[in-house]
Amino acid sequence: MVRHVDQEMKELNQDILKMGAMVEEAIFLSIEALKKWDQETAKRVIDNDSAIDKLELEIDEKCTDLIARYQPMAKDLRFILTGMKINAELERIADIAVDIAQRTLELVDKPLLKPLIDIPKLTAIAQNMVKMSIDAFVKGDISLAKRVLLSDNEADHLRNVIQKELIEDYMVKDPTTSTRAVQLLLIARFLERMCDHTTNIAEDVIYMVHAQVVRHHPERLSE
Amino acid sequence: MVRHVDQEMKELNQDILKMGAMVEEAIFLSIEALKKWDQETAKRVIDNDSAIDKLELEIDEKCTDLIARYQPMAKDLRFILTGMKINAELERIADIAVDIAQRTLELVDKPLLKPLIDIPKLTAIAQNMVKMSIDAFVKGDISLAKRVLLSDNEADHLRNVIQKELIEDYMVKDPTTSTRAVQLLLIARFLERMCDHTTNIAEDVIYMVHAQVVRHHPERLSE
Repeated sequence: MVRHVDQEMKELNQDILKMGAMVEEAIFLSIEALKKWDQETAKRVIDNDSAIDKLELEIDEKCTDLIARYQPMAKDLRFILTGMKINAELERIADIAVDIAQRTLELVDKPLLKPLIDIPKLTAIAQNMVKMSIDAFVKGDISLAKRVLLSDNEADHLRNVIQKELIEDYMVKDPTTSTRAVQLLLIARFLERMCDHTTNIAEDVIYMVHAQVVRHHPERLSE
Repeated sequence: MVRHVDQEMKELNQDILKMGAMVEEAIFLSIEALKKWDQETAKRVIDNDSAIDKLELEIDEKCTDLIARYQPMAKDLRFILTGMKINAELERIADIAVDIAQRTLELVDKPLLKPLIDIPKLTAIAQNMVKMSIDAFVKGDISLAKRVLLSDNEADHLRNVIQKELIEDYMVKDPTTSTRAVQLLLIARFLERMCDHTTNIAEDVIYMVHAQVVRHHPERLSE
């Protein structure tokens, strides 16, 4: 029997990679808009989101359809179900890019509060975590998934540094900066939430790979 | 053939209801801790979370197992897949209750900033949305799911009112309140994010029942 299911699973992989690329672009553009104080780019992030929403629904429907038509067992079923979960996480990350773009639109008509240093750093961490988590899924690579989990500590730390600086050096010292400082603080928290979503993906990947191992080779769990 | 699957689907319903009850309690306790400036209750929310995490994994595993063993078609498959999604959303809501408890722990050794009025109101909305969204799933009730979506506007509005007040009446007028005001502002945002998760549940229910795309086109709700 020709395994059409294998071909369709490959397509699912491709779709998730495409979704990942679109989400990475959304993150990039949302922070580009903030760095350049650029309304047009912020609006582009918001406009692009409907294509991401559409792809999410297509992938979700494709997964449901794959399960209904092929009734896959064990390994394939877990792969598809994990794909569905990752798809949803990616869509949420794109929604957060929209949140950042919306905060940016509220900032751009006001004077720049401070040069942005740590926020772009946190963005780079978030982008890298998105990339690594999707790679971990596609390759079924637990060590990569674990690296995502480790990176989250760095993201948490940087978010705290940003928050502390905005409160102590801006809001407290010059309360007229409060509205702008709150927007930047929220943006830092949004970025850190993106990282949280990638840790969900990483945990799903670890769970997927382990469950396969548990089923067939329980002795390998300790490896 | 005896439909064992029907019995197991009923059990899945019960599990989701149990998960919902635990999550509702987490929300209640997290705000109770805040209202009473009570460290012990805040810690209880954090301690209870591992039981919620455990139940989430059990439900997820049960769903995977149901699909693998019964290879359900169409309606049943969609019900189980929706159950998996709702289970994940509920676990995230409980995580946010933990976030609130952690912010509360940072507040309780400081003087009370203001009497809490709108935050308990927003909490009541969030709790009601959790209850309605789970009910909508269990009963497959689209009109209830739509009420959840409508309630979200109210939650957004209240969140904005709280944020504006905290910035304008506290941070700007008395910058020594900034740290505490930021914590309350974050708590308001956490509550509103809980509401967002319930709208995800509501959209999943509507999608399940109608297999109709409403997630990204709320305007079609009136159709």
